[in-house]
Amino acid sequence: MSQSKQKKNWKEQLHDIIYEAETPAGKLFDILLLIVIITSIILVMLESVKSIDSKYHDVLNAAEWVITILFTIEYIARIITVKKPLKYICSFYGIIDLLSTAPKYLSIIFTGTHALVALRALRLLRIFRILKLGRYLGASHNLVSALKASRAKISVFLFAVIILAVILGTIMYLVEGEENGFTNIPKSVYWCIVTLTTVGFGDIAPQTPLGQFIASLVMILGYGIIAVPTGIVSAEYSNRTKTPGPIALPADQNKTIHLNSQSCSNCLKHDHRDGAEYCYNCGEPLHNT
Amino acid sequence: MSQSKQKKNWKEQLHDIIYEAETPAGKLFDILLLIVIITSIILVMLESVKSIDSKYHDVLNAAEWVITILFTIEYIARIITVKKPLKYICSFYGIIDLLSTAPKYLSIIFTGTHALVALRALRLLRIFRILKLGRYLGASHNLVSALKASRAKISVFLFAVIILAVILGTIMYLVEGEENGFTNIPKSVYWCIVTLTTVGFGDIAPQTPLGQFIASLVMILGYGIIAVPTGIVSAEYSNRTKTPGPIALPADQNKTIHLNSQSCSNCLKHDHRDGAEYCYNCGEPLHNT
Amino acid sequence: MSQSKQKKNWKEQLHDIIYEAETPAGKLFDILLLIVIITSIILVMLESVKSIDSKYHDVLNAAEWVITILFTIEYIARIITVKKPLKYICSFYGIIDLLSTAPKYLSIIFTGTHALVALRALRLLRIFRILKLGRYLGASHNLVSALKASRAKISVFLFAVIILAVILGTIMYLVEGEENGFTNIPKSVYWCIVTLTTVGFGDIAPQTPLGQFIASLVMILGYGIIAVPTGIVSAEYSNRTKTPGPIALPADQNKTIHLNSQSCSNCLKHDHRDGAEYCYNCGEPLHNT
Amino acid sequence: MSQSKQKKNWKEQLHDIIYEAETPAGKLFDILLLIVIITSIILVMLESVKSIDSKYHDVLNAAEWVITILFTIEYIARIITVKKPLKYICSFYGIIDLLSTAPKYLSIIFTGTHALVALRALRLLRIFRILKLGRYLGASHNLVSALKASRAKISVFLFAVIILAVILGTIMYLVEGEENGFTNIPKSVYWCIVTLTTVGFGDIAPQTPLGQFIASLVMILGYGIIAVPTGIVSAEYSNRTKTPGPIALPADQNKTIHLNSQSCSNCLKHDHRDGAEYCYNCGEPLHNT
Repeated sequence: MSQSKQKKNWKEQLHDIIYEAETPAGKLFDILLLIVIITSIILVMLESVKSIDSKYHDVLNAAEWVITILFTIEYIARIITVKKPLKYICSFYGIIDLLSTAPKYLSIIFTGTHALVALRALRLLRIFRILKLGRYLGASHNLVSALKASRAKISVFLFAVIILAVILGTIMYLVEGEENGFTNIPKSVYWCIVTLTTVGFGDIAPQTPLGQFIASLVMILGYGIIAVPTGIVSAEYSNRTKTPGPIALPADQNKTIHLNSQSCSNCLKHDHRDGAEYCYNCGEPLHNT
Repeated sequence: MSQSKQKKNWKEQLHDIIYEAETPAGKLFDILLLIVIITSIILVMLESVKSIDSKYHDVLNAAEWVITILFTIEYIARIITVKKPLKYICSFYGIIDLLSTAPKYLSIIFTGTHALVALRALRLLRIFRILKLGRYLGASHNLVSALKASRAKISVFLFAVIILAVILGTIMYLVEGEENGFTNIPKSVYWCIVTLTTVGFGDIAPQTPLGQFIASLVMILGYGIIAVPTGIVSAEYSNRTKTPGPIALPADQNKTIHLNSQSCSNCLKHDHRDGAEYCYNCGEPLHNT
Repeated sequence: MSQSKQKKNWKEQLHDIIYEAETPAGKLFDILLLIVIITSIILVMLESVKSIDSKYHDVLNAAEWVITILFTIEYIARIITVKKPLKYICSFYGIIDLLSTAPKYLSIIFTGTHALVALRALRLLRIFRILKLGRYLGASHNLVSALKASRAKISVFLFAVIILAVILGTIMYLVEGEENGFTNIPKSVYWCIVTLTTVGFGDIAPQTPLGQFIASLVMILGYGIIAVPTGIVSAEYSNRTKTPGPIALPADQNKTIHLNSQSCSNCLKHDHRDGAEYCYNCGEPLHNT
Repeated sequence: MSQSKQKKNWKEQLHDIIYEAETPAGKLFDILLLIVIITSIILVMLESVKSIDSKYHDVLNAAEWVITILFTIEYIARIITVKKPLKYICSFYGIIDLLSTAPKYLSIIFTGTHALVALRALRLLRIFRILKLGRYLGASHNLVSALKASRAKISVFLFAVIILAVILGTIMYLVEGEENGFTNIPKSVYWCIVTLTTVGFGDIAPQTPLGQFIASLVMILGYGIIAVPTGIVSAEYSNRTKTPGPIALPADQNKTIHLNSQSCSNCLKHDHRDGAEYCYNCGEPLHNT
């Protein structure tokens, strides 16, 4: 890889900096990007606080323009250096990158769109990619695989919770009625979800004895059924992390594969194996040699 | 099954459409039924919202009559096509089907019964049957069997929680008294369930130092005992999903049986094995050939 | 046992009825006692509700006197029939039985002691003994043994939670101050327990940005550490319910011992093995032959 | 150890009393210290309660001076008897000891610093050291090792929860707006953490239908993801406490090592093995013979 770098043109070099995190320049780019993203979030947050905004409006506005321009440069650089720009623009991160840059420009022409700058918070999701947080979850990806295996079961469980909330919410609407805050069925269902999940805001609370009795059942139900998703994840994860007993498993079953964070410049897929020369997805050479 | 279909009369054909989900017509019927049920729930919800009802009262009322008539046709069709109509009428789903249709007719004669239309929410339970959600829980039904095995233990646990709530609620009534919102023992017990289950509405909250001290104990207790049902379900489910070790279990123990969702036209039992020719419950032929 | 019954005097017969649940008379006594206890709880509850008490005061008062007299007869019968009355009087259930009977008599002489009748709720604990609820937990007593094994760990855990609540509560008192409801340290600690256990009444809530930031940390902490007791109970219980693998355990390790609910008339110990002739604790014959 | 004690000078004897808990004098010192710490916490708590402080201000103030002087003596004694005083002063406990003593002296010169006396609550952490609570967690330290193994995974999980809270909080700010209590983004993020962790104070609650719909999703999400840390801890701990199967593990793997609570007078490290003569960390003899 180090030998072939000299031959690359500026486009390929820029691609390596932006999309790969293994080179020193790539690492520096990622850290700078992280700092800019977090700064932009803090700026948006500070700007939403009335007392701060009225004092430092000009400073915050200037800083936000700086960040918007930095984001614009990054967005354009990403489009230029990637082989299939349309694929990046339509990808999940591509849309988020656009949504977090465009509103500031639109705010010159239209008023009111400025609030959408808050969508910049979505760029925080890039942190997972930059910090390679997935790595911390263990090379064996036991947790991810446990969650994937539990997905269908947890979906059915959550679906059952919602149906339960609709039925119990409707009953509470009939029992409590509008004079006690259960003004309509959607609000009753909302109250029921608040109670089943043991959140309990208390903005709506049953007042009649019968309503309080049914509410008690809902609470005990919610308190009990939390055991179901917990049990599923515990068991699935437990099965995956089991320490092998004295009877050894075939050695190759435990082999962990190290993945790096570089992206293919053709199809944008990442998580390639260390030392891979070609993209596992499209077969394009990874290092543009 | 395809060969014998030609010989069936219209009653048997209708039975297949309504009670069986494997044929194309049966699938279509199920999907349409699902859409009508969800539409009816949304209608009832919208109608309960004052601001929407006052604007679109006539539209909503007309739509509800259409759905009531559709439900009536379905109810009559179910009675006609089944061999033992009385069994269907007295069954769980039969009663729900009646309760979700009748109130609209009664609302012509009596006023005030209209609110019972909300009972239509109970028809949501049919979704489980239609979507065959049980399938998603895994062919091995480990979770259901784990929950069944835990049922007795969780019942005792919940029973203990209720007794605890009665005792602690009574103590809180003595400590806090009526001036702090604990106006009577049932209300104190209700407060105690709200606290033990960590819901915490805050509509009633202890005011005296001693009351707050006891409340703290109740909360820590509630925070700690949630571990019990979770532990039970985790362990039971974990035992059932254990990946077999290198020493193989006899092959037939892991054989999964595929069930389909058709109902016996005689006894209404469903969950028959794929390819079954006779009802496992009453011995009646399943395909009315 | 049936042969020897004829020889018993009335005291021993009464002992069998009161303290043993295996004979038909004993079962009948237990069921009647259960009904009387639950009736007494409901009476005390109803009496605490102002609107009901003002209407039916005389009926409720009369019914309560009937129950008090029944409890008195039971209390005296228990003292007479047991061999060591003092041991019963000083036992846990003996004290509860006295506390749930005496206040009604004291209410004739002193006013205000009547509220103590509510202590009758403690008699609910006898339900566990009468219904032999322990049976439902499984003959192997895995859960009880798991909870016993976890007791020390959960105690340390809860102790750590309390120390954490004291420290964080003190910090919140310094940060928020009296003007935001954190009027003194005990109240701040109370708030901290409410938050750590995810109950969240909302009667006190942080108002300053710094306070809300610390509160967020407290909540995330509380949300995370619930995993500790749950994990302990899950793991301990899981280890105990493990289905034996294909390598069979020695058969006698899995033998379950059936216990019955009779009490020794000498030392009051119960949970004797079925068919036991002598008390396992004091060696006294169990059947007074 | 008993033989060598006679030869020690007063400094070494004092060191043994203060830093070691195995000798009778050391045990007595620890118990007295525990009592003084808890008394000081109670004093600070009582003083913060307005009604008590106004009545007994002089008594409380005097008692606090006594405790401050006792803490000062202990602090000086700890510095004198340890070999490397600077190391103790800069250690975690050294800083806490100073912070819990100094504010009272400063309150003579400056007003307002008195509130910092509340920092004394941090001395509660010493309880863990004095009571050797770690012992109760089991000699095998399974739980601690499970928590350490889960640390990275739980950190990533909590980090994901915070990012989720920032994104969802921003969306709620856009949806609900300032008129419904979501006055700025930091407050919305705070609300989101309150909801995701199922605490639910209710000081801020969504008012618009769309806001309540998103809030419902947040609650169900929070209710579901609690399963993740619980599952991780359960599985890790379960793997560590597994009862060895019929195939025996090598005996020495299960050997537990007993640790005592004496500190090395040179490097302050504790948790030395019973019978250890030299510090495992710096090689200094432990008993100053």
